[in-house]
Amino acid sequence: MAELILNRGAERRLKRGHLWIYSNEVDTRRSPLKGIEAGSQCAVVDSQGKPLGSAFVNPSQLICGRLVSRGAPLDRALLEERLRQALVIRERYFPHPSYRLVYGDSDLLPGLVVDRFNDVLVVQVSNWGMEHWLSDVIEILDTLVQPSGILLRNDHQGRSMEDMPLVNEVVKGNVPELAPFEENGVSLLAPVHSGQKTGWFYDHRENRALLNRWVSGKRVLDLFSYAGGWGVQALARGASHATCVDASQQALDWCRANGDHNNAGDRLETLRGKAVDVLKELVAAGNRYDVVVLDPPAFIKRRKDHKAGLAAYRHINELAMRLLPRDGLLVSASCSMHLAADELMECIRGASRKLGREAGVLASGYQGADHPVHPAIPETRYLKAHFVHLR
Amino acid sequence: MAELILNRGAERRLKRGHLWIYSNEVDTRRSPLKGIEAGSQCAVVDSQGKPLGSAFVNPSQLICGRLVSRGAPLDRALLEERLRQALVIRERYFPHPSYRLVYGDSDLLPGLVVDRFNDVLVVQVSNWGMEHWLSDVIEILDTLVQPSGILLRNDHQGRSMEDMPLVNEVVKGNVPELAPFEENGVSLLAPVHSGQKTGWFYDHRENRALLNRWVSGKRVLDLFSYAGGWGVQALARGASHATCVDASQQALDWCRANGDHNNAGDRLETLRGKAVDVLKELVAAGNRYDVVVLDPPAFIKRRKDHKAGLAAYRHINELAMRLLPRDGLLVSASCSMHLAADELMECIRGASRKLGREAGVLASGYQGADHPVHPAIPETRYLKAHFVHLR
Repeated sequence: MAELILNRGAERRLKRGHLWIYSNEVDTRRSPLKGIEAGSQCAVVDSQGKPLGSAFVNPSQLICGRLVSRGAPLDRALLEERLRQALVIRERYFPHPSYRLVYGDSDLLPGLVVDRFNDVLVVQVSNWGMEHWLSDVIEILDTLVQPSGILLRNDHQGRSMEDMPLVNEVVKGNVPELAPFEENGVSLLAPVHSGQKTGWFYDHRENRALLNRWVSGKRVLDLFSYAGGWGVQALARGASHATCVDASQQALDWCRANGDHNNAGDRLETLRGKAVDVLKELVAAGNRYDVVVLDPPAFIKRRKDHKAGLAAYRHINELAMRLLPRDGLLVSASCSMHLAADELMECIRGASRKLGREAGVLASGYQGADHPVHPAIPETRYLKAHFVHLR
Repeated sequence: MAELILNRGAERRLKRGHLWIYSNEVDTRRSPLKGIEAGSQCAVVDSQGKPLGSAFVNPSQLICGRLVSRGAPLDRALLEERLRQALVIRERYFPHPSYRLVYGDSDLLPGLVVDRFNDVLVVQVSNWGMEHWLSDVIEILDTLVQPSGILLRNDHQGRSMEDMPLVNEVVKGNVPELAPFEENGVSLLAPVHSGQKTGWFYDHRENRALLNRWVSGKRVLDLFSYAGGWGVQALARGASHATCVDASQQALDWCRANGDHNNAGDRLETLRGKAVDVLKELVAAGNRYDVVVLDPPAFIKRRKDHKAGLAAYRHINELAMRLLPRDGLLVSASCSMHLAADELMECIRGASRKLGREAGVLASGYQGADHPVHPAIPETRYLKAHFVHLR
């Protein structure tokens, strides 16, 4: 196993618990990155030669190393222990087998995501190191969970960046087009084959659970609805009416499928269009809703987009507030890693002041327990949602 | 009504939504603070004379003004509207009349706190401005809520700082020693007459609700237990055993009363002692728990205590972790306004690294909806709790 020697002091982040090694932290004079095969495992040592553990290495990436062990290198037995541990946590905290089973770094399995929909598993790999272990991962998952089907959704952008092949294939059994699962006691369908990411965004589970408690008899507007995670669940929990808005007709078709699955009938309305355009039309038409859910894609994808993204969040929150009467509720979310919860709160403050409305934040929610935050890796905490009561 | 003229630029914070005026922001040459009676209402204007609203003024305080209105001065009608609005929010979001009914600035009622225990109200006033309106407040609350009893718990430290008299008296009807109420579906008793603050800490309601979901069959250690908010609720929700630790025998007696009220029997154990001492003893004795709840009083009361407080949080979190086996759960809370949620996370990171334990934060919770956060007043957001799974 090749050695990766760090520059003096560069061991500090790892010792604090982080798992990433940046390429400029490697003493490339003593341990050249060139020549290391992408995805191979290396022994990581500090400048004095003291061992720090073992890492997946990709010499062409800015984050060139990802620690997989602080002791012996990752082998089949350790991989199995990690996957078993991930399952223990989910089985302990979730009453139903519908959850993110593996969440990368937080489960000490960098580059691996596994979402579970009952007895269907959807697997995503995002670095070469984990790619080398993929057949072992699948074998172990097969033994641990005994799924009826395993789908590889390795057709995401992250892989292109690492020059990894794009693949979307069933590697075990059968996987239906729409996989049934449960969230907050509501039966739903996830478009696992062709939906975004693994087909569903489990991360907002707890935030939706909170909203579910408050929607009885309410009219809900669900922007960026995708397959209806917020809107259809609200209907299943007693909302009188939900309008799901998405730019994609396919997303709205999935929304409708979830609505039909929950006997929503004409209580569910779908509206195709860009959120900002639709918001402006609804404002102009004088529409009002009891609840508006704003769960946009990341407006800040990279740090340099911060300023423009912040303005976009402020603008769309202001538009959403215009649709809320006195005692209306805004659920304002962001999945931008580069937008802190306090910054989103600041957007809400700014928008409410601009409109001269008094706002009270009733709750602030984050990711669910199947997306544990690694306390040394702020990047593992990206999701936030504020529940804002407007007077 | 006297005028309070602000220095140039000092109107900015108010315009951004904040409600406080610091004494050094007042143009005391043009509008001397001296001579203004503590608690009187003044018209606030910027340096150009533009009206900003109306504020309670206490010339002897660092925060000498607290905005009560951006329009006409507070009068009986506006006071009534504010109290009615506070009630609307609670009735909308809480299924049971057990909640903080008024949360000061967040309800645009600076200096007023009202906790409701079914048909008993406990009222606290912390500035002279609100004190002048107290009889109106009580009359309006009486009409709105029709309580069987109203207790004034004006015996708290905050009042001494404003040279306000300390009072603890029933101002309407009857108020039992232990007032029955409900939290997360569990029937409990609050020591309203002689307990801390109003007798109960409703602020952790949602965090306790989350823990309740995860305690079935578990052994729970509840440090700084006070009257058993965490420990007894956990027992009522299926925990196999709870040990409540508090330095005060009276707190433990209330704990026992709540245990008896919930048929806890010998599943509830109380242990008198200082948390750190007890923790050390339990560590030395080799005790282990499935869940440890760490909900200490504020270790950082003032900003200058920050460094020492941080060390105290780190130390106590480390001790608590020593009592948790693999797959144990730490609930680590702080009510210090001066400790950010991220700083508490950092204590958890540090402690877990020191012990060489891997930690995953499953959830982060804040105050419940009856303690709404004012988006322009960070001071209204003081509570945080991290749920940490230890491997």
